[in-house]
Amino acid sequence: MSVDKAEVFNLKEWTTKVKAFDIIAGGHIILLNEEEAMQNGVYPNYRVELHKGKERGVAVVDLTSELVKPGEIGIFKEVAADLKLKNGDKIHIHHITRPPSLDHIKKKMDGNSLKRDEVHRIIKDLMDNYLSQAELSAFITSVYIRGLTDDEVIYLTEAISQSGDILDIGKKPVVDKHSIGGVTGRVTMVMVPILAAAGLWVPKTSSRSITSAAGTADAMEVLAPVDIGIEELKEVVLKTNGAIVWGGGMNLAAADDKLIQIRHPFSLDPKGILLASILSKKKAVGADNVVVDLPIGRGAKIQDAKVAKALARDFIDISKRLDMRTEVLITDGSDPIGTGIGPALECVDVFKVLEGEGPRDLRDKSCVLTAKLFEMTGKAKPGAGFAMAEKLIDSGKALSKFREIIESQGGNGKIRIDDLPIGSYKHEIIADKSGRVHHVDNKILSHLARAAGAPIEKGAGLRLHCERGDKVYKGSVLFEIYAESESKLDFAIKAYEGGWNPIELQKIVLDSVK
Amino acid sequence: MSVDKAEVFNLKEWTTKVKAFDIIAGGHIILLNEEEAMQNGVYPNYRVELHKGKERGVAVVDLTSELVKPGEIGIFKEVAADLKLKNGDKIHIHHITRPPSLDHIKKKMDGNSLKRDEVHRIIKDLMDNYLSQAELSAFITSVYIRGLTDDEVIYLTEAISQSGDILDIGKKPVVDKHSIGGVTGRVTMVMVPILAAAGLWVPKTSSRSITSAAGTADAMEVLAPVDIGIEELKEVVLKTNGAIVWGGGMNLAAADDKLIQIRHPFSLDPKGILLASILSKKKAVGADNVVVDLPIGRGAKIQDAKVAKALARDFIDISKRLDMRTEVLITDGSDPIGTGIGPALECVDVFKVLEGEGPRDLRDKSCVLTAKLFEMTGKAKPGAGFAMAEKLIDSGKALSKFREIIESQGGNGKIRIDDLPIGSYKHEIIADKSGRVHHVDNKILSHLARAAGAPIEKGAGLRLHCERGDKVYKGSVLFEIYAESESKLDFAIKAYEGGWNPIELQKIVLDSVK
Repeated sequence: MSVDKAEVFNLKEWTTKVKAFDIIAGGHIILLNEEEAMQNGVYPNYRVELHKGKERGVAVVDLTSELVKPGEIGIFKEVAADLKLKNGDKIHIHHITRPPSLDHIKKKMDGNSLKRDEVHRIIKDLMDNYLSQAELSAFITSVYIRGLTDDEVIYLTEAISQSGDILDIGKKPVVDKHSIGGVTGRVTMVMVPILAAAGLWVPKTSSRSITSAAGTADAMEVLAPVDIGIEELKEVVLKTNGAIVWGGGMNLAAADDKLIQIRHPFSLDPKGILLASILSKKKAVGADNVVVDLPIGRGAKIQDAKVAKALARDFIDISKRLDMRTEVLITDGSDPIGTGIGPALECVDVFKVLEGEGPRDLRDKSCVLTAKLFEMTGKAKPGAGFAMAEKLIDSGKALSKFREIIESQGGNGKIRIDDLPIGSYKHEIIADKSGRVHHVDNKILSHLARAAGAPIEKGAGLRLHCERGDKVYKGSVLFEIYAESESKLDFAIKAYEGGWNPIELQKIVLDSVK
Repeated sequence: MSVDKAEVFNLKEWTTKVKAFDIIAGGHIILLNEEEAMQNGVYPNYRVELHKGKERGVAVVDLTSELVKPGEIGIFKEVAADLKLKNGDKIHIHHITRPPSLDHIKKKMDGNSLKRDEVHRIIKDLMDNYLSQAELSAFITSVYIRGLTDDEVIYLTEAISQSGDILDIGKKPVVDKHSIGGVTGRVTMVMVPILAAAGLWVPKTSSRSITSAAGTADAMEVLAPVDIGIEELKEVVLKTNGAIVWGGGMNLAAADDKLIQIRHPFSLDPKGILLASILSKKKAVGADNVVVDLPIGRGAKIQDAKVAKALARDFIDISKRLDMRTEVLITDGSDPIGTGIGPALECVDVFKVLEGEGPRDLRDKSCVLTAKLFEMTGKAKPGAGFAMAEKLIDSGKALSKFREIIESQGGNGKIRIDDLPIGSYKHEIIADKSGRVHHVDNKILSHLARAAGAPIEKGAGLRLHCERGDKVYKGSVLFEIYAESESKLDFAIKAYEGGWNPIELQKIVLDSVK
């Protein structure tokens, strides 16, 4: 008999009333009466299991002496929503049994390879809230140190892709694009209409910004709702061939969001988990052809071409075993693409490119990636993809398709560039000396744009007026800052004056040694 | 300029009012208004720094739309206590800067050795609440997988011992005893009076039970308050030479408690952390001579004698570098010591032994460990320690000293055995067949005792009437269950009948193979 069963002894099942608290706890938390809890051997941070009819959930315990009386249980919003609870409901709670995945995590910690069912169990226990942040972190740290075999990556990808909803539009081929660590929201917004106009199926799920000035979802949201459900996504795609939506609003590869929270502080992207994270989302939307943009160079996630190539190789091999065809383009990631930074400003770039003008680098990059998918799916003969992409732009077909998609997602398909809500407060940053632009820093651009209010304030951001290689003259405009309020504009200007300058002019003296 | 400074941009310092909530959150948590927080780029689980005058603290964010309005901040009990806040106070909050220790933890993750200041920084950031559970877990997992060098163990021990209060009684020699994974609360309670009676200084800090039926502190608490402060501990020891108190009530080696929370789910005792954990507490009370009881065998933490010896060697070497003298006795841990299991029942054993009778094994083990300390400190010549210990018992000096210590800690020094509050509800467990006792299982004993209500109900527990090797007859009493209520007694009886039987009789057939 397992000794851990003893846990059940000290906390009898007891029926309590629900008292719903309007607190989003960032986790599943419940409130118990301090005295009652401790008498039952329950302490803060203990985990218990809640039952109401068929609904079950796991929650972490907080204690109070005043807010909740014995016999009552305080429920925070996440738990109330999950278990469909309201004030006065009766529920059962008891100690949680030890999750089997803890043994599997320990196994990986000890350097062993996990079997398929063990990996699936870890993801299942994660989704059932059986794993604490600490336990999940132990898993990710172990994977980082010990690594994952190709088999384990496959199991993990399968498990994550099955951890949420699956999108099956019943059509082929379904294409997708992914950029590793790039700042390319606008590229997606240019590509999707071209691909859709060509008759390929492209249900593009994207993310909101975490640290950048605008995620693809933030930018698209300027034009149409992106927080739509999976059924609506299916409708839009079946009607127009494409869509650009917020993946977070759907329940696709749901486990990945939980894993990402832990990886972030250490920038832990153990290769296996990165691959599983990306590929699980592609699998969940039914993609069969994927083009990956892998930018390298200064400011990009990966600097070394050899490292990039090895990652690309893994991507292709692993996705093949998952019945997906992937090709990887290693691109130059040291420069920003386009001129706008911020949701609405990026939309301006997108519309201009689809109208046949706009920033050349944005047009070219979008066509190169689109071309790859055309050739992979046989839409175009080898080498003919780029011309096909350009033709769809220049004929206006990509632009009408874009407007169709916007309308179909619930936006105003007839919106004009002048109507795009860029911030009304503007400030020009002037060059105080002449010189050649040596580098334009993506990270600093993001930070300034965020200081101005992006992405929450959709009109905020920057518009560049120079790029690497340009010769600028004292007095010319380097870039403009846009904001939706005077105070935010000031805040961003102060940041720039405080030293956050994204434009590096060529130096004569690189360093001095004494 | 470090990119992370950008964190400061999106959350201006703002003054908010404090609204104290009566919730013990098991961590440092604050409540912000949902809309206001998100506008400032703050999400659930974000960490922010709070300032009020000189008081600073770090807290994790929860969000609400109703309970706290913009401009207000909801404070849970831990934060309110830490920063000395009350309703209506104005405080500043802003994004937290990235803790330097994250880089050090990453360094260990990557398999490198840490320098002294890096280890100290991790403990400092831990104590300042800069590290989340996930980040702390990443550190402990990394230490488990990568190991610690002897130097790192020294640095860690120093850092943990300095993380809280230090006890300096200004006397020598200060002796201590530690049992690794044993169930020996009563041994401590017998040893301390003998050591004190001999004139050694023994400020014994002990823990409460986590999974056992009674920690030393729980048992001592039957006789006297154990939750005293460090100043009072010093007084008691200077007056009587000894004390037995609850370490958790003091702030000694404070970082250790935080580390233990993370180690527990995986039973992670990476050797280096175990040593640092134990030795830091000895250092914090100023011990210079330590005897370690290392039980091995069935049911004990360590089964292998070689492993035990290696651990013992590390203990001795590391403590020497910390200016402590340690000796280790490897003992047989497969049997319970004494007859009582549970706070009051163990006190009965202790008093009986100090009166010169009582369970022989308890008397012998206590004397053996005490003898070692006598010889280490020169109180007794080599080989003469055991006799000295026995004499202090048989002369009654240890018993009077015990009564003195109880009185000095605020208890009733004149308490009689008959007054000890063992549970009034009793049930005898009768042998249903004859046989020789093969094994008495410590873990199952603990679980039954806890089912009966120990350690929270001090009178609850078990009293054994047989030990390994005894021949028992059908109808004889194997052990008794004690409880403070009928319902608890029933609960424990049901547990026993459900299969939790601690007494294993010798089997004729060990196994059968088909």
